[in-house]
Amino acid sequence: MAPPAAIEVEAVTDTTGVTVPNPLSAPIHSNEILGRRKKADKKQWGIAAPSDSKNFRLNNYEGKPKARRWDHYLSNEAKMRKGNSLKGAAKFLSKPGIISLGGGLPSSEYFPFEEVSMKVPSVGHFSEADTKDSGVTITAGKHDLVNDKSIFDISVAFNYGQGAGAAQLLRWITEHTELIHSPPYEDWRCTMTIGSTSGLDMALRMLTRPGDMMLSEAYTFSAAVETALPLGVRMAGVPVDAEGLIPSDMDSMLTNWDVNEKGGRKPHILYTVPTGQNPTGATQSASRRHALYAVCQKHDIVIIEDEPYYFLQMQPYTGPNSPDVPPPSSHQEFISNLVPSFLSMDTDGRVMRLDSFSKVISPGSRIGWITGSQQIIEIYQRHADCSTQSPSGMAQLLLFKLLDEHWGHAGYIDWLIHIRMEYTKRRDTILAACEKYLPKDIVSWNPPMAGMFHWMQIDFTQHPDYPAKSIETIEEEIFMQNIEQGALLMRGSWFYANAEDRHDTLFFRATYAAAPAEKIEEGIRRFGESIRKEFGLENGTNGIVIGKRKDRD
Amino acid sequence: MAPPAAIEVEAVTDTTGVTVPNPLSAPIHSNEILGRRKKADKKQWGIAAPSDSKNFRLNNYEGKPKARRWDHYLSNEAKMRKGNSLKGAAKFLSKPGIISLGGGLPSSEYFPFEEVSMKVPSVGHFSEADTKDSGVTITAGKHDLVNDKSIFDISVAFNYGQGAGAAQLLRWITEHTELIHSPPYEDWRCTMTIGSTSGLDMALRMLTRPGDMMLSEAYTFSAAVETALPLGVRMAGVPVDAEGLIPSDMDSMLTNWDVNEKGGRKPHILYTVPTGQNPTGATQSASRRHALYAVCQKHDIVIIEDEPYYFLQMQPYTGPNSPDVPPPSSHQEFISNLVPSFLSMDTDGRVMRLDSFSKVISPGSRIGWITGSQQIIEIYQRHADCSTQSPSGMAQLLLFKLLDEHWGHAGYIDWLIHIRMEYTKRRDTILAACEKYLPKDIVSWNPPMAGMFHWMQIDFTQHPDYPAKSIETIEEEIFMQNIEQGALLMRGSWFYANAEDRHDTLFFRATYAAAPAEKIEEGIRRFGESIRKEFGLENGTNGIVIGKRKDRD
Repeated sequence: MAPPAAIEVEAVTDTTGVTVPNPLSAPIHSNEILGRRKKADKKQWGIAAPSDSKNFRLNNYEGKPKARRWDHYLSNEAKMRKGNSLKGAAKFLSKPGIISLGGGLPSSEYFPFEEVSMKVPSVGHFSEADTKDSGVTITAGKHDLVNDKSIFDISVAFNYGQGAGAAQLLRWITEHTELIHSPPYEDWRCTMTIGSTSGLDMALRMLTRPGDMMLSEAYTFSAAVETALPLGVRMAGVPVDAEGLIPSDMDSMLTNWDVNEKGGRKPHILYTVPTGQNPTGATQSASRRHALYAVCQKHDIVIIEDEPYYFLQMQPYTGPNSPDVPPPSSHQEFISNLVPSFLSMDTDGRVMRLDSFSKVISPGSRIGWITGSQQIIEIYQRHADCSTQSPSGMAQLLLFKLLDEHWGHAGYIDWLIHIRMEYTKRRDTILAACEKYLPKDIVSWNPPMAGMFHWMQIDFTQHPDYPAKSIETIEEEIFMQNIEQGALLMRGSWFYANAEDRHDTLFFRATYAAAPAEKIEEGIRRFGESIRKEFGLENGTNGIVIGKRKDRD
Repeated sequence: MAPPAAIEVEAVTDTTGVTVPNPLSAPIHSNEILGRRKKADKKQWGIAAPSDSKNFRLNNYEGKPKARRWDHYLSNEAKMRKGNSLKGAAKFLSKPGIISLGGGLPSSEYFPFEEVSMKVPSVGHFSEADTKDSGVTITAGKHDLVNDKSIFDISVAFNYGQGAGAAQLLRWITEHTELIHSPPYEDWRCTMTIGSTSGLDMALRMLTRPGDMMLSEAYTFSAAVETALPLGVRMAGVPVDAEGLIPSDMDSMLTNWDVNEKGGRKPHILYTVPTGQNPTGATQSASRRHALYAVCQKHDIVIIEDEPYYFLQMQPYTGPNSPDVPPPSSHQEFISNLVPSFLSMDTDGRVMRLDSFSKVISPGSRIGWITGSQQIIEIYQRHADCSTQSPSGMAQLLLFKLLDEHWGHAGYIDWLIHIRMEYTKRRDTILAACEKYLPKDIVSWNPPMAGMFHWMQIDFTQHPDYPAKSIETIEEEIFMQNIEQGALLMRGSWFYANAEDRHDTLFFRATYAAAPAEKIEEGIRRFGESIRKEFGLENGTNGIVIGKRKDRD
């Protein structure tokens, strides 16, 4: 997708007048579309200062289509949101010389922090060992803003903020989003979240009412189900294949929706994890996404695109004994090789994309962001102002110092390439272990192309006690056998989109994200033992003997 | 209130075997009730490890009454909360030698942080200047836990957490709560929040349904109103005097509640800010609180005690030219002089107390906590697991290093005494300015004893355009005149508990928390100018001439 036409460059230097490293000066694209930050209004760097991600976009979106309006889907709660009136009074603070005895903001005099420092990797030296040796220490002072040392400091970050998050980090996030996705409509916006789980909770409160059903993969992120259920919202699981959601199945489900049979109105929301889906590991191809988007257009569906694993897309899997594929040779190549997002094809403004730093920087930041239409983002911000307030300013300051001032966009892409290669190694480790230790007549899988999860199907029909025992019972027994063998894997049934549906498949989910390589291998070996025991197979080098009844009392 | 009987001391040293400064070894009470941390189970310091604040209580609560059950008030949403099933799988991780391929937690290998440091005040040298000179630099490493350097580190804090927050900080919070409030029932618990605004949002979703009404001060925190309204919950404002809510008025409101007239069922929740209330600055006395608690018992009301300003209780106000009252001479004296909380008198477990670090450490931490009955806290945690997840681990780590490892409880009390004296000075500054610059025939006030706000009543009946102009119009004109004079003060009407009620008072709220002393004085001077202009008074040294009509077209 071609980037929108570039707008006039106003200034690269910051209005604070300080020479801070300009992250956009590094050529991320060889055609240098970047280096074009607009002149910043200094006021937006102040305490709890309002800001708008629109001001941070690098390209001109005039003439692009406007997002559709979603009034017909808004909940009563969403319609009643008027925002925080006291934060609204902040607009009068722009009057020169005004003295505020207004907002109940504590003075930074009483924040017991003079400096915060962190030792972080230099670009290109990303490993833990390299960071120890050659890491750089970056420091944020209390009054760097007023001292013209930085545009973000403790006195601002550690005070109250806006629902959107601080302008300083929101700018970087908006630029990053534009660089990767170039949303093809006029009025797209970004706003920070305190993580995508909260983002989903707030999205559902905005767009659903009790009794609603929501489309999702037939196996889906259990926390999403558990977030939705107490709101009275149930998942309607759409069949999946190796590429995730099947468009024709989704279309026919919607076309033939029977309110009485289903017990809820026709869904108007799709919740999907398009890349490295949890738990199935499936990644929707570009053409699959286009087909799904068309189905959503046909049925007027809002897409909640939950993408924590987007940058855990890995190198192609070449099999156990083939040479590795070399890493991307340029930032441009890395970006072009990413599967295009729903956001990047969203001419209607029907996508609410949830991004997160959890899988690529740190879950403990509790910082993510949403990209969507101005209407949706504004309602979200109003809710945030009356609930989450803003992500932790302590975390925002650390991320800003790292991502904007230290690495810049180019350095961050280098980091993402590092992560990509690391996850590729991990994925290859678990697949090699599976090849080696699992009885392939019983356990089968597709190599994951993205994400953290390896999803293994168990042919329960070969279990000696099937069909006397149910799928769930066999699954439970394998799970407990795993524990006995010393391996924790997740049961597929924990990820049912809707536990009430009939299920005729049995899966286990293993992650290769957390444990070191030797533990991954040993964990899979134990899982193999456990399967052999439960299925009554001989042990031995390749001793797969199928159908032998287990020795049980 | 006598503290509960002490339990046997098990160990003061930590099970990590390291000599970390034990904050409880400092004698906070002269009778040394502290120094009695229980032997910690090392597993609870691990990544996303479950913990229970019960394990951190220092005293024995057996034999105390149990909290009442609140099932009759729970919303459908609350009843349906089952918690996060994947986090539940964590219980199997306690098996020795188990390898987890379960939870999708990223490896800390990919957190690009080797160390985080902060320069913070030494105990007793708390000012900004002192911190610059004599501040101490504290460092958290990535693998301090496994290296036996600390019980909390980057590898744990920067990963996922539990809804309750990390055990390391939750222990400190629980101890602090016990030290200050000694809740008088058996099954009280603490759990962290991402701030009290979110805490209130989640509490209302647990305990109310659309159409409900909730008691509050007649003038109340506008963000609380704006949090409640979209949920369909309206405030029922209770008349207040200089000590806040009037118990007899609250009792008669409840006794005579007419569902048809009020348009909502009889309230079952009281939302109150008992200390330094926002916006009125009122602080309920101990006897007032006892009387209010009795009314709540009579009508079976749950009390949401929102206490951001509890430790902004100040020294007694002695008037413009009297000597200051000396600071508390001991920790014990400081604690005894605090107005007792509702939590400290809560034999029924009907109080849900919201505490916050925002006003005493930093709003940007986005960390607060709730204390309440086990039932309420468990439902809250289940909701957190499916929405907020946990406060930012980055912020939790900074607070833990400061509060537990560096200051300890004793040092924190010293810090609170410092804050108390600072706010006393600020309060005295604004009161002196008001004495000097405001026409006292028109503007009247009570000296605030706590909090950040000075609440000034305007005698609108003396306005030359009254009654031709409404109270709201006069208020609006004063507000805009303030802006013209260069001072931002908040309009009283922004704090109406219920805008639909008839109001016959006019107030402005000024904060003395944010601006430096000379700006506070100048801001009040401008406010005085503005009142004089609007009320058509002569200017001059003491030139208060009442009733002279403004010169208007």
